[in-house]
Amino acid sequence: MIGIDDEEFIRGEVPITKQEIRVLTLAKARINFDSVVVDVGAGTGSITIEAARLAPNGKIFSVERKPEAIELIKRNVEKFSVDNVEIICAEAPDGLKNLPELDAVIIGGSGGRLEKILDILYTKLKIGGRLVLNAITIQTAATALGYFRTHGINFDAVQIQITRLKKVRAHDMNQALNPVWIITAEKV
Amino acid sequence: MIGIDDEEFIRGEVPITKQEIRVLTLAKARINFDSVVVDVGAGTGSITIEAARLAPNGKIFSVERKPEAIELIKRNVEKFSVDNVEIICAEAPDGLKNLPELDAVIIGGSGGRLEKILDILYTKLKIGGRLVLNAITIQTAATALGYFRTHGINFDAVQIQITRLKKVRAHDMNQALNPVWIITAEKV
Amino acid sequence: MIGIDDEEFIRGEVPITKQEIRVLTLAKARINFDSVVVDVGAGTGSITIEAARLAPNGKIFSVERKPEAIELIKRNVEKFSVDNVEIICAEAPDGLKNLPELDAVIIGGSGGRLEKILDILYTKLKIGGRLVLNAITIQTAATALGYFRTHGINFDAVQIQITRLKKVRAHDMNQALNPVWIITAEKV
Amino acid sequence: MIGIDDEEFIRGEVPITKQEIRVLTLAKARINFDSVVVDVGAGTGSITIEAARLAPNGKIFSVERKPEAIELIKRNVEKFSVDNVEIICAEAPDGLKNLPELDAVIIGGSGGRLEKILDILYTKLKIGGRLVLNAITIQTAATALGYFRTHGINFDAVQIQITRLKKVRAHDMNQALNPVWIITAEKV
Repeated sequence: MIGIDDEEFIRGEVPITKQEIRVLTLAKARINFDSVVVDVGAGTGSITIEAARLAPNGKIFSVERKPEAIELIKRNVEKFSVDNVEIICAEAPDGLKNLPELDAVIIGGSGGRLEKILDILYTKLKIGGRLVLNAITIQTAATALGYFRTHGINFDAVQIQITRLKKVRAHDMNQALNPVWIITAEKV
Repeated sequence: MIGIDDEEFIRGEVPITKQEIRVLTLAKARINFDSVVVDVGAGTGSITIEAARLAPNGKIFSVERKPEAIELIKRNVEKFSVDNVEIICAEAPDGLKNLPELDAVIIGGSGGRLEKILDILYTKLKIGGRLVLNAITIQTAATALGYFRTHGINFDAVQIQITRLKKVRAHDMNQALNPVWIITAEKV
Repeated sequence: MIGIDDEEFIRGEVPITKQEIRVLTLAKARINFDSVVVDVGAGTGSITIEAARLAPNGKIFSVERKPEAIELIKRNVEKFSVDNVEIICAEAPDGLKNLPELDAVIIGGSGGRLEKILDILYTKLKIGGRLVLNAITIQTAATALGYFRTHGINFDAVQIQITRLKKVRAHDMNQALNPVWIITAEKV
Repeated sequence: MIGIDDEEFIRGEVPITKQEIRVLTLAKARINFDSVVVDVGAGTGSITIEAARLAPNGKIFSVERKPEAIELIKRNVEKFSVDNVEIICAEAPDGLKNLPELDAVIIGGSGGRLEKILDILYTKLKIGGRLVLNAITIQTAATALGYFRTHGINFDAVQIQITRLKKVRAHDMNQALNPVWIITAEKV
């Protein structure tokens, strides 16, 4: 199963990848029961946790630079009782060089060093593996698209706009979430 | 000119019709220099003010039930120096029966009595006049669409989703506004 | 795994539930390895096929009225080698009464008889089961929301707008898919 | 008045700026009764025509490279009886250097030479004038945003997603138009 409700995660002030975006990101990453995955910019760990449950025989490397987020990831790992997560407290691309070969790469945040991160992680990606990137700014999206184009890497991209319907008495009111680009590259 | 920036209005806590929605609503209402217009659920008066400037030889009836909003409308009328606005403090459909024939009807809020409001205002609409309704809940939109269909009234409808790009250092971040339906009926 | 590419399905002229909508629908239905599921208005069978793979020890009843769609479902069942699908050629609510208890109900199309379909299928839904409905018209969405509200059934709803980025030489061009409401009810 | 229906323009095969995008573009350009405006990549001339009606004492330079589009602009100028349009058949930035000082610049298409076009037209823009650009690819949007940022030019940007409701018997079906970025710069 996939698609844990946002409220079930221990969250604090750290932004969370919303359920719908998380589900689509994981689907596009094609995570298998034995996938080795890195989640860069893991935030609360919501993608890490769901990936860990999709890959019980695999392993998830959860990379995050902020100590308060690291704390949340730890608590969510505990809450959801997953035992295949390794948390790496580092600012990517630091901390990525020692990773093993990867089946899937998920990049939720890049702290402005996206190209260096892509250089390292695309190298570590196995043939047939997938790299999925979430972007909330046009510059991050354009940088990723430019990178894949320049390097002749296969990709596709979608922008997802979710509007939740919020109950207000007998009415359901449009409540928009911020659109996110999901960009997927495949190593062929 | 049309499309006053949101920040230029005196606003308080009352929700404002965002510039883009306001501009499209006014365009679809086809307000002319001598149009007689009613703005129901006027809120801060942003639509009232822009309509007043588009119809310098016309008249705008601005209907609003909340005293604090009435106060804002008055202050915005003063700030933008328009002299063709009549403010009516009433909960529609109350206060609508004494209106003259209308060239355009704009309904921003209906307080759940939409059908009665439509009954009265469609009757007052001149042949060739336009009624434009903004809906932020699916029930209001469906009620309006059902009303126009049942009464054999010509209409068209769009849903508008605006995402503003918010500057965050060197990036422009997606920041969604809630989608709004704009439903336009014409009396033929 | 979840999220078969649209192009992998045998399609003909029958509309397909796009990958992203399909993935989110299946996630919200919380299909388990042994779930018993009905897919009403199955179309090409894309949801049926993915549900069948998520529930290898379960069973999927795939209900569709159009003979040409039935043919496509059969061919997709064969192509994807799933053996836990039972195809029912009927116009719902016909064909639903003999279904067993269900873990999940997915309604992609209702042919205007939504309330009768909901009456039957909600009864057959197990406690804790989920009913997920896709709507592409405001009337279908409003009818479903009204039904759940009237019957005191727990629900939540989102509207999903996907924009695919289409490659045009060195550019990626916005290409919108039609927004879909995904409405999820849970039997508690 | 602003907001001519798309169907009223003579169109052929040339893409038209849809009514809602056109209205917002013109509003953000703040066209006045005596504005001097250039419309680059004029296509069918729909923006040119509406600008010409908003600026009866001004002048609109309508720049377009495709002969078949030029023909459509001419026919639309005639149909809407505007007499303040000068059509320039050229591939921008060619044909822009002889323009006078401008109150408003509208760029609907740039044929990949956006930065050179911006160099020339921003120079010609009067203090207080507005430049409004429509982008349908992320690269064009990112290039424009980068240009304004690098040159220290004030800007704001929105993405607009319109969904038209198409009547299908008793239902109104979501029918998405492709999202467009509208980027507005002001010379201060």
